[in-house]
Amino acid sequence: MIERVAILSTGDELTTGRITDTNASWIADQLFGLGLDVVAVLTVGDYPDRLAWAWQRALELADVVISTGGIGPTADDLTNETVARVLGVPLALDRDSADRIRQLFAALGRDMPENNLKQALLPQGAVVVPNPMGTAPGYRIEARGRHLVVLPGVPREMKVMMEETVLPWLRTLRGGDVYLSRIFQTFGLTESALDEMVAGAVDPSEARVSFRASFPEISLRIVVHGAPETAAARLETLAARIRARIGPYVFGEGPVTLEEVVGGLLAERGLTLALAESVTGGLVGHRVTNAPGSSAYLRGGVVAYGNGAKRELLGVRQETLDAHGAVSEEAATEMAAGARRVFGTDLGLATTGIAGPDGATAEKPAGTLWVAVATASGTTARRYQLWGTRDWMKLLASQIALDWLRRHALGLPLADSQLFRPRSR
Amino acid sequence: MIERVAILSTGDELTTGRITDTNASWIADQLFGLGLDVVAVLTVGDYPDRLAWAWQRALELADVVISTGGIGPTADDLTNETVARVLGVPLALDRDSADRIRQLFAALGRDMPENNLKQALLPQGAVVVPNPMGTAPGYRIEARGRHLVVLPGVPREMKVMMEETVLPWLRTLRGGDVYLSRIFQTFGLTESALDEMVAGAVDPSEARVSFRASFPEISLRIVVHGAPETAAARLETLAARIRARIGPYVFGEGPVTLEEVVGGLLAERGLTLALAESVTGGLVGHRVTNAPGSSAYLRGGVVAYGNGAKRELLGVRQETLDAHGAVSEEAATEMAAGARRVFGTDLGLATTGIAGPDGATAEKPAGTLWVAVATASGTTARRYQLWGTRDWMKLLASQIALDWLRRHALGLPLADSQLFRPRSR
Repeated sequence: MIERVAILSTGDELTTGRITDTNASWIADQLFGLGLDVVAVLTVGDYPDRLAWAWQRALELADVVISTGGIGPTADDLTNETVARVLGVPLALDRDSADRIRQLFAALGRDMPENNLKQALLPQGAVVVPNPMGTAPGYRIEARGRHLVVLPGVPREMKVMMEETVLPWLRTLRGGDVYLSRIFQTFGLTESALDEMVAGAVDPSEARVSFRASFPEISLRIVVHGAPETAAARLETLAARIRARIGPYVFGEGPVTLEEVVGGLLAERGLTLALAESVTGGLVGHRVTNAPGSSAYLRGGVVAYGNGAKRELLGVRQETLDAHGAVSEEAATEMAAGARRVFGTDLGLATTGIAGPDGATAEKPAGTLWVAVATASGTTARRYQLWGTRDWMKLLASQIALDWLRRHALGLPLADSQLFRPRSR
Repeated sequence: MIERVAILSTGDELTTGRITDTNASWIADQLFGLGLDVVAVLTVGDYPDRLAWAWQRALELADVVISTGGIGPTADDLTNETVARVLGVPLALDRDSADRIRQLFAALGRDMPENNLKQALLPQGAVVVPNPMGTAPGYRIEARGRHLVVLPGVPREMKVMMEETVLPWLRTLRGGDVYLSRIFQTFGLTESALDEMVAGAVDPSEARVSFRASFPEISLRIVVHGAPETAAARLETLAARIRARIGPYVFGEGPVTLEEVVGGLLAERGLTLALAESVTGGLVGHRVTNAPGSSAYLRGGVVAYGNGAKRELLGVRQETLDAHGAVSEEAATEMAAGARRVFGTDLGLATTGIAGPDGATAEKPAGTLWVAVATASGTTARRYQLWGTRDWMKLLASQIALDWLRRHALGLPLADSQLFRPRSR
């Protein structure tokens, strides 16, 4: 029965502070969902002795060791030889992996540098964990009653490999009682407000509740533990209680993005959308088009960064700009209505604001945001006061805009959020 | 002489994935700047045995151990008693710290819960590191030829204490040599191709070279070590050698983004830009507007997702769409020229392609990308074959487009990249 896991994060970029280790927290979060106990995270740079030290310590501590990093093609990628040395087994060329690397290069019409084959030299006994996103194969290997899992350090490769191969395998290994979890993706409440609203809904003996903030969203997870059927029934009961308390703030359950939810709602209702973006600079369009199939409802948009574009492409009147400025209720309203008219859609969505640091005034400080939605029955605009860095403000503005579309499609009122309080003019 | 540091991050919130450990990377970055070597980062939850294990291992590895977390007033704050136990010294009430905690509560007009005094129980021999931002005092203590530094886990308290007290003290302890580094941000080469091109340019005795892939960019860092003046001169010599080998692929040195580089080049040359985005859906506009001051050169863009938008807003001819389709050299060319004309700019940039999974055909598979740039002297378009998931393709397409602008502004040829091979029609 496996219980204890150690996570090993390797790479000089971690020990010299060049990047923050987001892999370890993501993996820890996934393991928490399986009821596994992360005993330690060990992080070392690309040195043979330090890697060997970390592997030895990790194997002393845990039933399962999950390592990220150090399996690329370059000289400082030392994980495979370290694992082989620590376990006392030779490295052997994994022919399937070698073939796959050659094929990937051939498919791209590229010559394969010889050092790429190094990635297919795996410790004897390794069972490949396929890497659909890159050339370096991962693997798992059992030795001395321990399970070792080796994955690349590139987050997007690591995550797919965890989700597709490692987590299902761990779930099987674990057996017996199950840990079932449900994630509620929320937007519009702070973590402490969420905590207060949910408090008392779940007794600690029924489930573990945890929050995870990933700006600007906060997810809430409940994990129940028990025999498969009891656990599943309890999960549904608790989920219903959570929904009753925070429903309108929950844009999705499970691993879904806000843009996918919005896209699904628009597609279901047969609504088409056009965008008029100023402060978000294309970010709303980018997010909407991240959802596959978005061409079914998105006709297009105008990134109206200059006043000329607002006027000529969206029909915003010069007198509006003169009298109220480009960051105003009037301009936002004309932009949304203009996008709807120009693209001939059911909905027009506009953002205009001041991301800073330039352009701020006492009356319209950095963080001023107007969002407007135009429909057949008229246009609604609202002002928000955001805060933070330029990229935070753009992201939060795009989130508010997308959440408007969700609430509009569902007939929900606009959120009087604690994250961003709508201001009167 | 101190040389080796271990960082100890403690708290269940780290081992259950509720938060990402940004403290360790921030501290590591500061220490790197002092030329100190972070041998390992050890992360454990709030358990007496795990904390003791981590402290013992850290003291075996390093001259200095810096710990964050576990010094608050609650029952799961175990760092002080762990340090006392590991060093075999008693805990003693630090009267100054206790007085300060009482005063802080008095100043707020609040009763002090008794457990708050627990924070002033420090291991015998501790030298207080003042905490101007909170109630928990930090401290350092010397034992067995090692230096232990204990800080709170709250980032804003920890950072001030590092900056005001710990880093100046470490600088004094350290003296002597410096470590200097230079980062080259590249696009258009794989990591192994970069490795081969740079191989031999830097002798391991001169500097340490490392790569970090952050799709779709790869950065290369060189670190030199020595007496301040020798090290600075050597860094410049090596940087010149690196530039000579991979210059056109280096879009920036130091912490700069491609969109900032492109923006700087456009602003310097007084060039204005308009965008016509299909496959990138607004991502190019989003990236361009991430750079503060981008309104100086970006007039705007059209997200022309539907054919109607391509036709009506950009003037792409219906016969072009009928004869060649929206993903074609002809459409890309008319889109770029249209954006330039409609917005009245010096440059028009267009992307059109198939991000998939819908819309792919045998002739135009998923990953087909056309990029076009229109200038006063005409329009150039080129086809690429990308691969990967939808979001990868969008990101890579936006990167290729931005890199075109950079190369155009610098008079460099378009990259015949190994990441994406331009294909003939």
